[in-house]
Parts: sequence; structure tokens; C-alpha cells
Amino acid sequence: MRGAVIYAPRDVRIDERPDPEIIEPTDAIIRIAATCVCGSDLWDYRGVNPVPEPHPIGHEYAGVVQETGSEVTTVKPGQFVIGSFFASDNTCPNCRAGYQTSCVRREPVIGAQAEALRVPLADGTLVPTPGQPAPEHIPSLLALSDVAGTGWYAAVAAEVKPGSTVAVVGDGAVGLLGVLAAAELGAGRIIVMSRHEDRQKLALEFGATDIVTERGDDGVARVMELTNGVAADAVLECVGTGESMLQALRSTRPGGNMSFVGVPHGADIPAGELFYSHVGVRGGPAPVRRFLPDLIGRVWDGSIEPGKVFDLALPLGEVAEAYRAMDERRTIKPLLRP
Amino acid sequence: MRGAVIYAPRDVRIDERPDPEIIEPTDAIIRIAATCVCGSDLWDYRGVNPVPEPHPIGHEYAGVVQETGSEVTTVKPGQFVIGSFFASDNTCPNCRAGYQTSCVRREPVIGAQAEALRVPLADGTLVPTPGQPAPEHIPSLLALSDVAGTGWYAAVAAEVKPGSTVAVVGDGAVGLLGVLAAAELGAGRIIVMSRHEDRQKLALEFGATDIVTERGDDGVARVMELTNGVAADAVLECVGTGESMLQALRSTRPGGNMSFVGVPHGADIPAGELFYSHVGVRGGPAPVRRFLPDLIGRVWDGSIEPGKVFDLALPLGEVAEAYRAMDERRTIKPLLRP
Repeated sequence: MRGAVIYAPRDVRIDERPDPEIIEPTDAIIRIAATCVCGSDLWDYRGVNPVPEPHPIGHEYAGVVQETGSEVTTVKPGQFVIGSFFASDNTCPNCRAGYQTSCVRREPVIGAQAEALRVPLADGTLVPTPGQPAPEHIPSLLALSDVAGTGWYAAVAAEVKPGSTVAVVGDGAVGLLGVLAAAELGAGRIIVMSRHEDRQKLALEFGATDIVTERGDDGVARVMELTNGVAADAVLECVGTGESMLQALRSTRPGGNMSFVGVPHGADIPAGELFYSHVGVRGGPAPVRRFLPDLIGRVWDGSIEPGKVFDLALPLGEVAEAYRAMDERRTIKPLLRP
Repeated sequence: MRGAVIYAPRDVRIDERPDPEIIEPTDAIIRIAATCVCGSDLWDYRGVNPVPEPHPIGHEYAGVVQETGSEVTTVKPGQFVIGSFFASDNTCPNCRAGYQTSCVRREPVIGAQAEALRVPLADGTLVPTPGQPAPEHIPSLLALSDVAGTGWYAAVAAEVKPGSTVAVVGDGAVGLLGVLAAAELGAGRIIVMSRHEDRQKLALEFGATDIVTERGDDGVARVMELTNGVAADAVLECVGTGESMLQALRSTRPGGNMSFVGVPHGADIPAGELFYSHVGVRGGPAPVRRFLPDLIGRVWDGSIEPGKVFDLALPLGEVAEAYRAMDERRTIKPLLRP
């Protein structure tokens, strides 16, 4: 089968790779209907994370089950399924607490930018849709695999409630889907920090009420101004740099909550500032599995359309161009069709 | 009047100081019935915080209102009152959210180790008791001014719930009163990290169920062992050093909550570790004012006795010995009587 391999920074190619096979009796093999490039793939692509040797890449997927291991009982060949970027057993104490990305048996799912994929712990990881999806639903179902689930977790971890004043730092796909999640959870006001017109437009479509174009301390000052000097109840940090973490922290009111869902790169939190802020902070790789059944339902009945973040669709063979477009910010998020 | 002044590290003296006077119409003057030395006073005493010039010290107080400014309406001369170490108006948005130590008009209360004290924003800061307290209740009422309120906040900020498994890092007065708070809030299990026999005894009296004498990573391993590898639901960090913060973080389960209530000294939180922990963190100077009405009631009806942390009582004139005893850990917390 054909699959993407990263050889070095800025060098992603489609290779002929061995077809994935069942290794453990809890595995499933799925045929990918759609996959995509993630902001976190860019850490490798840009050389921020080292790439010591070529390896398959991609961790977002939706598709049809082709084969299952002998112990798999909840998904069957032929079903359309979505899973998270971390496989989980969904039965350990951390899974039962809703933190499947801290599953004691968790395994990263790697190599999803391909025609087929082996998914470990299939029973705990994959969630089938109610039936075969219409083609126009596939981008939204794919989005649930990571970005939409991550945006949702960002809103939940920041404790967005009906009527909350929310601020979102970051206008990438995750930030935009954080806006969508906050709106679905009943936020009264959603301030999004964005300087890109196409992203502002989508943010407004997803439910943002205010756009702030300033960054850093100027951005904080603008949020304070918009909230009568109080700051926001809930702030979603969807970037992962030291500057964006501080901007988010300073945009949250005392007693409010800030979430951070981008893997932090070189961003320690000054404990003294966190202390005096009275802000509650929770981050982490989103436990997408917790939200999948609910979010699949919302896509299925048409109440949300997270797939709108895909403003570029390419055949899998053009994966290199997908990475380039993402890196150069020519696209919010590119979808790939095997 | 007589009052304590810190001149330099390890040099606290009783001086003859001017009687406090009403400066703002919102002030009250109270005659101190009892005061005490705080763990945070030791940062000055030990030279960790600079003492550029001599200044009055002490911020914990309970006593009788002597005089009020023309705009004070809720407390009257003759009433016995308790207040927080930060004065607050109790009407601004942060106060209304329950974070009076982030009041937009907050002012530190300084110089409580004295015969009398000026308290700013008296209406928002002071809470009267239902009547004149019996002498044996005074230590417990005094404790509410800071340590008991701080221990209570530590439990609330760590979201202790009925049945929670709780761990407390730190066996100073705040940690011990965190144990008491967790027990009152219905915790099912309370693990306290302590290596001092007198403190272990009081922790058990306050409701601790398990004692862990190991520190650092060994302490974490012991908590994991006691919780079948899951870690605690709620962890109260009551020390404020980098080591204790990490110990607390690593003792909290994914999805659990850690509070930190000691002013952090040289303790940045590694964002990467916080991210992958899935732990929610909230700290800050305790908004004692939020809890005072409830806690005064609990002391008044005898259901809690936080004053048990005072295992040494001295006349105000012996303030230097009180600091020495606290510094040398010969006392959990010394009470001073003017």
C-alpha cells in the first residue's frame, strides 16, 4: 500500500509500504477514507522535533474496518469507524475517569497518512458511526479524530458553561474548533484572537462574537477592555508556545479556568504568576475517545460541521504539497484522500 | 502601643509604636485578642525575602472593634471580629466570584503582631462572631484568619468531594488544617506526608487515614502504592518549594486536581510535565473571606477545632522566642497574646 513517510525536515514522501497486518488479537486494520495533516506534524516537518530516521507519519483517520483480531468484539469488518490518535483500552481507571489519553495501556497510532492503518486496542479506541456516512459528512467525521475532539476538550477543560465569557488564543484548526465547542456548550461571548481574514470568517461562522487582532500584552489589554477589566471566565490556549501560554493566563479572570491543548514547546509556567492569578489550569493530549460518541451524534444529525476547517483537499499522492501549504499557512488544514 | 517590628533576618523586636488611627472612612481599629506567627513570616525571618528596612510584621488577627470610620456600617465597636490578611471590598467582580484576595481594591494587612491594628475596608474584610467568644474558642477563631482558611481553600481548590482520595504534601499548620478541611468535606481517604511524630498525631486527630514518611519520588511511589497505581484524586500542596510542587503533581491522578497555597519560591512548573499529567492546578493566596462565615459557624458550634495547631502560647513580649521556636520547628505554630 502507499503511505507517507517523513525522511527529514521538509521531506515527506509517499512510499510503497507493507500492508498493515494484525499483530495483537486486539488490533483492527482499517482502510482509510480520509486523513489529514495536523499542526503537531509540523513540529517534525519544521525540524523542531528531531527526525533521527525515516518513519511513517499521520495520526488522524476515519475509514472502514477491513479486518479485526480474534479478541475484538465491538467493531466489525465493513463498519465505518473513527478513533483517537492514542489507542486506549477504555477500561482502566484513567479511561473510566474520562482520560483515555492517559490509559495505562495507551499506544500512539502512527502512520495514518496512508491507504490502510493498524489500530491497536480496537475495542477501546474505535467508535463506529450509525451507518455508512454520506460523502459530505466524511470531512467532519475525520475532524473528530483529533482537532474537533481537541477543541472540544479545550472548552471542557476550561470549564465553559452556559453564559461563560470565553477567549480563544490561536486561530489554527484547534482554536477554531474550540470556538465551535464553546458555542455548542452555551458560551455567552466568544472572543477569538486572530489576524487572518479567512480564519476570522470561519471563527464567526462557528460562533465567535468578537475578534481581537492584537497579540501578547496588547491582546491581553484588549480582552480586559472587552470584559470591563475582569478578563474572561474560560480561556482556551491552542498554540503551545511560552508567549501564548502567558497571554492566555493573563486573559483569564481570578477564579476562571485556562486550558492548554497544544504540546508545550519551551514553555514553563512561572509558578509565582500562576499563584497570584487564581486561575485554574488543565492541559493535556485531548481524551478524544471520551467525546467521540457525543460528537459523532452531533455530526450525524447535522448540528455541527467541524469539517469546515478543511479548506484544501488533495489526493494522498500530493502529501508533500499538503505539508507545504500547511507550513506556509496557505491552508487552515488540508484533507488527504487515499 | 506595643508591636512587633522586624529589623533584619532573625531580628524581631517589640517596639513602642504609635497607636493605629483611622485614616480612611472605611477603616476600623481593632484591639487584638490573639495573633500568631505564620510560615510565610519565616521567609522574611530567614532572609529569603529581603528586609530593606525595619517594618511592622504579622497578618493574622482576631479581636474586638475599638473604633470605626464614618463609612463603616457592618461592624460596630465592641464586636469580636476576624479578618483576612488581605483587606477586600467584598463587592468587586473578583470578590463576588469568591476571590477576595484578588479584590481590585485589595490591601495587605500588616502589623498584626501588636496590641492594636488598623484594618482597611472594614465592611468587606471583617466578619463578627455571633457574640463574645469563650476564651477557649479564641485560638480556633484566630486560626481562621489565615491557616485554617488557607487549608480550607487548599481542599476546595483541589476539588475535594465526598469519597475523594486526598493527599496532603506538607505537615505545617496549613497542611494539617488541609487535612481537617478534607475530612469536613467528606474525603474517603486522607494521606498525609509527614515525618514528625507530633504532627502525624495531630493529622490523625484531624482525620488523616494514612501517613507517608517518604519524600520526593519515594513519597510519590508510596502514594501510588496506596492507591493501586492510580494516584490521588485531590492533592494539596502546602509547602511552596519546587520539590514539593513536583511531588504533589506526580501524586495526582490524570483528571485529578492539585492545589498550591504556599507562595512559590523558585518553583516554575514544567509545562510539558503538567501537560501530560492531565492534572488540573489552582493556587493562590487563600480567599479566606469567602469561607469566614461558614468556618466561624463550625468553630462556634464546636464541630471543628483548628486552634489545636497552636502548641505554644506566649505573651506578645516574647515574640522573638516565638519566631525562634517556629524557625527551629520546635512548635507547629505559636500563638501570641498581647
